[in-house]
Amino acid sequence: MCTDKNKHDRSRRKFIQQTTVAGAALLLTNPIDMFSQTTGKQAANIKSKGYAARDASGKLSLWEFERRPVGDNDILIEIKYASICHSDIHQMKGDWGPQQYPQVPGHEIVGIVTAIGKNVKKFKVGDRAGVGCMVDSCMQCDSCKRGEEQFCDNGKTLFTYGYPDKSSPSGITQGGYATNIVVRDHFAVHIPDNISFEQAAPLLCAGITTYSPLMKAKFKKGDKVGVAGIGGLGHLAVKLAVSKGAEVYAFTTSADKVNDIKSFGAKEVIIVDDLSKLKPYKGKLDYMISTIPAQYDVAAYAAAVKPGGSYTQVGMPVGFNLTLSNIALATTRVNFNASLIGGIPETQEVIDYCAKNKVVPQIQVIKAEAVNEAWENVVNKKARYRYVIDVKTI
Amino acid sequence: MCTDKNKHDRSRRKFIQQTTVAGAALLLTNPIDMFSQTTGKQAANIKSKGYAARDASGKLSLWEFERRPVGDNDILIEIKYASICHSDIHQMKGDWGPQQYPQVPGHEIVGIVTAIGKNVKKFKVGDRAGVGCMVDSCMQCDSCKRGEEQFCDNGKTLFTYGYPDKSSPSGITQGGYATNIVVRDHFAVHIPDNISFEQAAPLLCAGITTYSPLMKAKFKKGDKVGVAGIGGLGHLAVKLAVSKGAEVYAFTTSADKVNDIKSFGAKEVIIVDDLSKLKPYKGKLDYMISTIPAQYDVAAYAAAVKPGGSYTQVGMPVGFNLTLSNIALATTRVNFNASLIGGIPETQEVIDYCAKNKVVPQIQVIKAEAVNEAWENVVNKKARYRYVIDVKTI
Ligand SMILES: [Zn+2]
Ligand SMILES: [Zn+2]
Ligand SMILES: [Zn+2]
Ligand SMILES: [Zn+2]
Repeated sequence: MCTDKNKHDRSRRKFIQQTTVAGAALLLTNPIDMFSQTTGKQAANIKSKGYAARDASGKLSLWEFERRPVGDNDILIEIKYASICHSDIHQMKGDWGPQQYPQVPGHEIVGIVTAIGKNVKKFKVGDRAGVGCMVDSCMQCDSCKRGEEQFCDNGKTLFTYGYPDKSSPSGITQGGYATNIVVRDHFAVHIPDNISFEQAAPLLCAGITTYSPLMKAKFKKGDKVGVAGIGGLGHLAVKLAVSKGAEVYAFTTSADKVNDIKSFGAKEVIIVDDLSKLKPYKGKLDYMISTIPAQYDVAAYAAAVKPGGSYTQVGMPVGFNLTLSNIALATTRVNFNASLIGGIPETQEVIDYCAKNKVVPQIQVIKAEAVNEAWENVVNKKARYRYVIDVKTI
Repeated sequence: MCTDKNKHDRSRRKFIQQTTVAGAALLLTNPIDMFSQTTGKQAANIKSKGYAARDASGKLSLWEFERRPVGDNDILIEIKYASICHSDIHQMKGDWGPQQYPQVPGHEIVGIVTAIGKNVKKFKVGDRAGVGCMVDSCMQCDSCKRGEEQFCDNGKTLFTYGYPDKSSPSGITQGGYATNIVVRDHFAVHIPDNISFEQAAPLLCAGITTYSPLMKAKFKKGDKVGVAGIGGLGHLAVKLAVSKGAEVYAFTTSADKVNDIKSFGAKEVIIVDDLSKLKPYKGKLDYMISTIPAQYDVAAYAAAVKPGGSYTQVGMPVGFNLTLSNIALATTRVNFNASLIGGIPETQEVIDYCAKNKVVPQIQVIKAEAVNEAWENVVNKKARYRYVIDVKTI
């Protein structure tokens, strides 16, 4: 990577070696490999084009920008599809803090590897690859070594867009609503052949974000698992829990989703147009996951879990803040926790699992120019259930 | 109890039987027993005197009021001491919702049984008894039968003051800053002889509220247990955890409490004048309990617990509401739960445990007329550590 502290110490000899290797690669493989070798400051930035927020309006427009050159440990991915996560909207609108613009959102990214750095062994050119919510970390600490790079003990987890990144020509990471991305090889995962690019994309955030806590919950076959909020994340949570043998209770505010949700395999769909609808389920569930990305009555939902059980919040509301009634939570005797994506090994695991077991999201493929309309639909709970941008339309 | 739905069906014959029994008791035991038998509507209310809130000002003044007559399952306790819990102040000020006034606070109550109803076997006249945060429940549901009356499945848990109670002449339950109390026998506990009344009083709320989650946490000898907020509840949490073999880390904002807290047996006292003081403890503790009765940065404290561990909130803030950062909590990977007092059998257990193991609160006995000043000190974190009202001064 170009953030390498020693880059200024590179000798001319090393530079010659590298360019020589680059030349050889150029002869041996395909022409795009000319980007694949670290050539110090001399390497050109990579041109990219994507949809970027220019301000907190929640509107995106076409932007031409640059990625860093492909470093020794990097791969270049030509993006095929990028899907839309509610988090993209929250962050671009500044709901989680002020942002630097222009900023390209998108952390559900799939495509084809078109160049690799000289140290890269994980991928070869032509591989199908995906990138999720993070693109780098320290890789040295216990958490990183354990494959929980999202919890890097040194605080070096670098999220896919909007985070300060000296290696990026724009100064921040830029996401996947774009034609390409340069990423450290470790932070890309393989997309198996038996799943389409467009179906794999949502697994990179929505999939791993629900899979990780569901696996930690260690429910048994036949256990009753609740899923609150059946959107992009929630519908995958239903499918994953069903696939893992749970009896799934889905809680939604959208009456018109009932048939869909039953087709995902849910045992029961509860339309929570009023909190009183939760009462009959008091203490009935073994575990519950909430994907509701807004303030809501946590304890009212958590009460559906039996005393001593766990309840995981993965939806991230405005400001990340949730207000809950401590006395009501005390009455439920439920353990409340929150979960944030998953590590890279587990991200690979969920993609492999979904490909093998045909657990795939419900998607609507859209042209890039429809992205603003799609965002409005997400906010208005009209997405069914994940919009996927066809990047060749950018 | 006079709320008995069948009271109007009582036959004249039954009435005669009861008054006859009452007459016999009067001859056999001490004169106060004349209150001890249910005599239907004819039984006189019992005069009481206490310190009541008249409005949400947080000031109390002397009030003469009445208790219900002693029902068949009731006992009358002549109160000796009542201690001051921060909850008393919150509730009287309306921090947890609007209140009916006059209202006598107090749910850490100890005294001597001076009359019993005809069905009462748990107590006899002359026994030492205590009353905590609740005075009735359905007694029929699974939770009540299991001894978790605070979680009555029928929602019939009746808290000690301020809750609608048809049997009370004032229409609500009235607490223990008073000369006496009438309570269903099951909801009083025995105070062993080897603990003083004034030391036993704080165990009825502060003791059980911290003991119950500490026991549920099932920490092992030598485990690192954190206690946040070292006031009335917190100082007992420190003593209880130390007594149960934990290595205790106490987190306080009051620098002048350090020596006290060390004398309670804490291994380390951390003065959290700034949240950065928590950082060195990241992931170090096996379990943590917070008694902080106000909004604070939950995740910053919870981060001191190792991933996968639990964190219990027992302090109840204004409005009962706590706002926490979902993303910060996700990063801690800690299970957050809340706890509310404990059941009657466990309340008896903590009192017996404390009496036997000499785990006693630090108290300051005050005259009743000093109650308003004491409340101010509690609010201003000047209590060291529990004020106990000497009820004979009322
Ligand atoms: Zn996402
Ligand atoms: Zn790390
Ligand atoms: Zn209390
Ligand atoms: Zn009950």
